[in-house]
Amino acid sequence: MMNNLKPGERLDDLQINGYRIIQSPGRFCFGMDAVLLSAFAKIKRGEKALDLGTGTGILPLLLEAKNPEGQSFAGLEIQEESADMARRSVCLNHLEQKISIVTGDIKEASALFGAASFHVVTVNPPYMIGQHGLKNENYAKYVARHEVLCTLEDVLRQSALVLKEKGRFYMVHRPFRLTEILAGMSRYHLEPKRMRLVYPYRDKEPNMVLVEGVKGGRPRLTVEPPLIVYKKGGTYTEELLKLYGLDEPDEERAGK
Amino acid sequence: MMNNLKPGERLDDLQINGYRIIQSPGRFCFGMDAVLLSAFAKIKRGEKALDLGTGTGILPLLLEAKNPEGQSFAGLEIQEESADMARRSVCLNHLEQKISIVTGDIKEASALFGAASFHVVTVNPPYMIGQHGLKNENYAKYVARHEVLCTLEDVLRQSALVLKEKGRFYMVHRPFRLTEILAGMSRYHLEPKRMRLVYPYRDKEPNMVLVEGVKGGRPRLTVEPPLIVYKKGGTYTEELLKLYGLDEPDEERAGK
Repeated sequence: MMNNLKPGERLDDLQINGYRIIQSPGRFCFGMDAVLLSAFAKIKRGEKALDLGTGTGILPLLLEAKNPEGQSFAGLEIQEESADMARRSVCLNHLEQKISIVTGDIKEASALFGAASFHVVTVNPPYMIGQHGLKNENYAKYVARHEVLCTLEDVLRQSALVLKEKGRFYMVHRPFRLTEILAGMSRYHLEPKRMRLVYPYRDKEPNMVLVEGVKGGRPRLTVEPPLIVYKKGGTYTEELLKLYGLDEPDEERAGK
Repeated sequence: MMNNLKPGERLDDLQINGYRIIQSPGRFCFGMDAVLLSAFAKIKRGEKALDLGTGTGILPLLLEAKNPEGQSFAGLEIQEESADMARRSVCLNHLEQKISIVTGDIKEASALFGAASFHVVTVNPPYMIGQHGLKNENYAKYVARHEVLCTLEDVLRQSALVLKEKGRFYMVHRPFRLTEILAGMSRYHLEPKRMRLVYPYRDKEPNMVLVEGVKGGRPRLTVEPPLIVYKKGGTYTEELLKLYGLDEPDEERAGK
């Protein structure tokens, strides 16, 4: 099957439900942050979820694959080339009835979708402020990683608007901005309720933070056990393999 | 030596510099939180440090023992019986020239000591809000653990007042209040710069958080590697033994 791949694109197996995704290595490919966010976020039966800045649609695809029936997903992406790849991946996996991809600006989310219209928001926003981090030669990667087109403040404001009361907000971000993240969520009444730090090794600084906020929730944060990615020697920990769906099935283990 | 112990009091060896401390098990004894905070806080040569709610003076005693010469410490404690034990421990260790214990209210700290009068503030405040946690039968323990006489807000306000510009604020607290802690520090311009979570076991939720703020600092937080207390089976990890000064000296290891 050619699946209408365009120049520079490739088709990757998502290792779940037989789903595949179209990506363009020259532009941007999804990373571990997206996979960990999809494992951290909980979408219940019948819920509507919005992924802000969906890129090639990795979050809706992984969430749809993992979660019980009856949900629907929208993905909002400002870059038309990425949104186009996301739409073609949705077709490829026959998910047109479950996932819709909208080209548009996060700053316009509540105008596009309406206030209080989702049970869940997920977002893997640009992490870097202004000049922080390396600027990418490539505009698509630059926009995905730097707060050029939208800031953390924009993400929080729009998420608070599109969520229903008690709706849940899931984000992956960098620990160096944790103060802004927690204070900002609280200010926008997306009260932080659950947080997990991702440490590459058990004796290293964390390089990702996963947070869940509840719109109108009461203040009390549960910090979860550390999520450690690699064992000594650089192989994945068992928990990480499990989150990636790459662990051995229990039967095999029991059978030794 | 009888050291003027009063009924119910006992004398404990601090395992550092031969220092000892008078405690009263019926009232309150210091815990691991105080020891970890003393290891997390950095006091430089010649600096003046204030410990808010010093209790029996454990923080000034441990900090004085660990740090280079030329510093001086003040400990502020509202409960006269605790302040009295702290003063007798200071005498016992011949530290009258280095540590002064003042009986008074955290809410009056800036009035008592003056604005911008310290390089460092340390604080191990009451963790519990109102009815959270078990109320202690005992008033001394109750005041030490619950926000009866002062709130987190009081601690932050007074710390910001007594610290010099670029002065450092060190606190140990509970992770369930992390949003309030980081947002409050930022609001009082005690910008969070360093944070470490203490996990009892590597696969358990953290039960303490250590934070460093810098008065007037720029926002950017370093989250440090996880501090794990116990290994499987309940023995201390090497890092914890080291922080307690209970690790084998290097010579012994090398000689083995």
